[in-house]
Amino acid sequence: MGLIVQKFGGTSVGDPERIRAVAERVVRSRAGGENRVAVVVSAMAGETDALVALARELGGESPDPREYDALVSTGEQKTIALLSMALQSLGVPACSFTGAQMGMRTDASHTRARIESLDAHAIRRVLDQGAVAVLAGFQGTDDDGNITTLGRGGSDTSAVAVAAALEADVCEIYTDVDGVYTTDPRVVPAARKLERVSFDEMLEMASLGAKVLQTRSVKFAKRYAVPLHVRSSFHDGEGTWVVPEEEVMERLVVSGVTFNTKEAKIRVRGVKDQPGVAASLFTPLSQAEIVVDMIIQNIGDDGSTDLTFTVPRDDYERALELARRAAADIGVEAVEGDEAIAKVSIVGLGMKDHAGVASRMFRVLAGEGINIQLISTSEIKVSVVIEEKYAELAVRALHAAFVEAGAAEPLEES
Amino acid sequence: MGLIVQKFGGTSVGDPERIRAVAERVVRSRAGGENRVAVVVSAMAGETDALVALARELGGESPDPREYDALVSTGEQKTIALLSMALQSLGVPACSFTGAQMGMRTDASHTRARIESLDAHAIRRVLDQGAVAVLAGFQGTDDDGNITTLGRGGSDTSAVAVAAALEADVCEIYTDVDGVYTTDPRVVPAARKLERVSFDEMLEMASLGAKVLQTRSVKFAKRYAVPLHVRSSFHDGEGTWVVPEEEVMERLVVSGVTFNTKEAKIRVRGVKDQPGVAASLFTPLSQAEIVVDMIIQNIGDDGSTDLTFTVPRDDYERALELARRAAADIGVEAVEGDEAIAKVSIVGLGMKDHAGVASRMFRVLAGEGINIQLISTSEIKVSVVIEEKYAELAVRALHAAFVEAGAAEPLEES
Repeated sequence: MGLIVQKFGGTSVGDPERIRAVAERVVRSRAGGENRVAVVVSAMAGETDALVALARELGGESPDPREYDALVSTGEQKTIALLSMALQSLGVPACSFTGAQMGMRTDASHTRARIESLDAHAIRRVLDQGAVAVLAGFQGTDDDGNITTLGRGGSDTSAVAVAAALEADVCEIYTDVDGVYTTDPRVVPAARKLERVSFDEMLEMASLGAKVLQTRSVKFAKRYAVPLHVRSSFHDGEGTWVVPEEEVMERLVVSGVTFNTKEAKIRVRGVKDQPGVAASLFTPLSQAEIVVDMIIQNIGDDGSTDLTFTVPRDDYERALELARRAAADIGVEAVEGDEAIAKVSIVGLGMKDHAGVASRMFRVLAGEGINIQLISTSEIKVSVVIEEKYAELAVRALHAAFVEAGAAEPLEES
Repeated sequence: MGLIVQKFGGTSVGDPERIRAVAERVVRSRAGGENRVAVVVSAMAGETDALVALARELGGESPDPREYDALVSTGEQKTIALLSMALQSLGVPACSFTGAQMGMRTDASHTRARIESLDAHAIRRVLDQGAVAVLAGFQGTDDDGNITTLGRGGSDTSAVAVAAALEADVCEIYTDVDGVYTTDPRVVPAARKLERVSFDEMLEMASLGAKVLQTRSVKFAKRYAVPLHVRSSFHDGEGTWVVPEEEVMERLVVSGVTFNTKEAKIRVRGVKDQPGVAASLFTPLSQAEIVVDMIIQNIGDDGSTDLTFTVPRDDYERALELARRAAADIGVEAVEGDEAIAKVSIVGLGMKDHAGVASRMFRVLAGEGINIQLISTSEIKVSVVIEEKYAELAVRALHAAFVEAGAAEPLEES
């Protein structure tokens, strides 16, 4: 007998017919009571957008965050009640829980709250009675009973938190894709589904642009060692398991090639090489809540420095303006920007054991005539910034060289 | 400085524009902070119907009551968040409360819960901070934290409960009519708005068919002596005050003429006049949750009895069937039914001081050639059952004789 937590997103519960299909899926997983199942759901697709439109109409561009959360949290509450009814119609006992009812306690940061604790007592009682627990994702309450929402990727995070609290055997994340792929199949038709991937690889892939899971929920799963199973809403086949590193049997040198064309680059030339300069530059950006991704510093012969960094493209204009203002204070030669960039990365646990992966990556790109502007590495990842127009070419070449050629092929410099 | 509780129904908050109009109304009542205001709202018109349709689609004809309540309670939660935002947009601080958040505790009878207690501590704190408390009507939670709804007229009852708990100066019920009228103005153009009416008169009028307030909320208001002010959503003019009897200055002999064409009559002939017979007849009806209104018994010369009673017309077929089955057990002559009836009533505190009101009513009806089938009286009411086709004629004649003629006219037999 197992304990399964399942998470279905807004598209999977987008209309009554789909809610019924989810109910049937849950019934199959329950296997006549053999398994205990807790289901975490999002608002029906379109529902949140409609609520946000109402909020803007009555609350203006920035409606009160507390009331915004009270409003949008009705979306999941609708889904849990409807899914419970659908399960009951199939003869399976079910009981819904709002964030408050399930004891999902968060901090008081409305619209982007962080989970503080989950008292799974009430959920466990329902499961022990043989019923399906149907839980509202994305929402909780703070210490004063105010309704909060978790922000982007919140429902995945809710599901992982529930799985951790219940010590579930698995947290199944249902999506409109089959699992985690070696790269975007729309760019590389030869992309293949991974059977297993480690939390750290998944974290890198998620933060580098693979959209199947939010970084936040993977971090949570890693911390509490909750095995994730990313699988399709449309069929019962196996998807991709995201598991602790020791459970990844086949340590691929490169398990994924990702790309991100939603960043922009800012270069500050002729920065004096003295303490406090970087702080003067980046403090205004962090105060403006602009997330700086890569930062590269080159010290020149004359003791002055070039500082290059990337920011989300949506924040580019603001970041450029802030950088220019800061630059005026600290006295630099020039501030230049470029939006037409792409970040292309390779990710793989096996890099830990193989040297020379980076240099082979550079050679593959050079072979395609692609110039590298910036480089950043971690233990299991190499990222490069290139001209945006080469992004897909670079992904295809790297996928062919590292994934399609297979892990079996000897690495030249290993 | 006053404390005002206001209640706006689904039509008053039916779309964003109307919610904004309600916000403006609340701001006027608040008078720049001079008054403290708590607002109780229903779901936006149409919202509940849409949710009920979804419930039927996924839960069938009788969806699980607990999940039904979890679903429909999202309707008011939407309204409280949106109205709070609208108030904030007008520069007025506001804070929303779901049933759970305001401490509205009910019993566990889903879809028709009864209020057990209201801990107004949280609401009072918000009011004391100078903010408007925006409260979800119609909903509460039971002792286990399950969401409950109060059923028909629930939002009015919520408003009265809040006013009682806060010891408010007034509970204002906003409607699409100006107030309480002497009769339905669509039937009698000379109908006039009452300035004041007692709780008991209002109770009689509500239970006799005047739709402006639900009996339940008036009972609650009477018990806790909460003055009600029934007034228009569309303009700021005075409506009708519903107050304790001692505050009604002008004790009209007849303050209202009501009629109800939604009942049916069942007559059981030749019932043996012995103990237990009535119980045999009415127990099955009450078990089937059919509400019996009037019951009239006539003892004949031969020791047998005719028993006539009225039931809601929607329950007529079921009631007739149950009566026939019971009649077969107790051995009666015949069971006859008639749907084409109307109950016409006159209501007035002044009847207590004036004899002969009933007989004058019978003479007025006889003067129009209307035959009376059943009669029922209380201290402040006389009701008669007549043929349905005479209902409007009877109302016009009684209104002319008792209301338009004025209380000043001497009553023949007083």
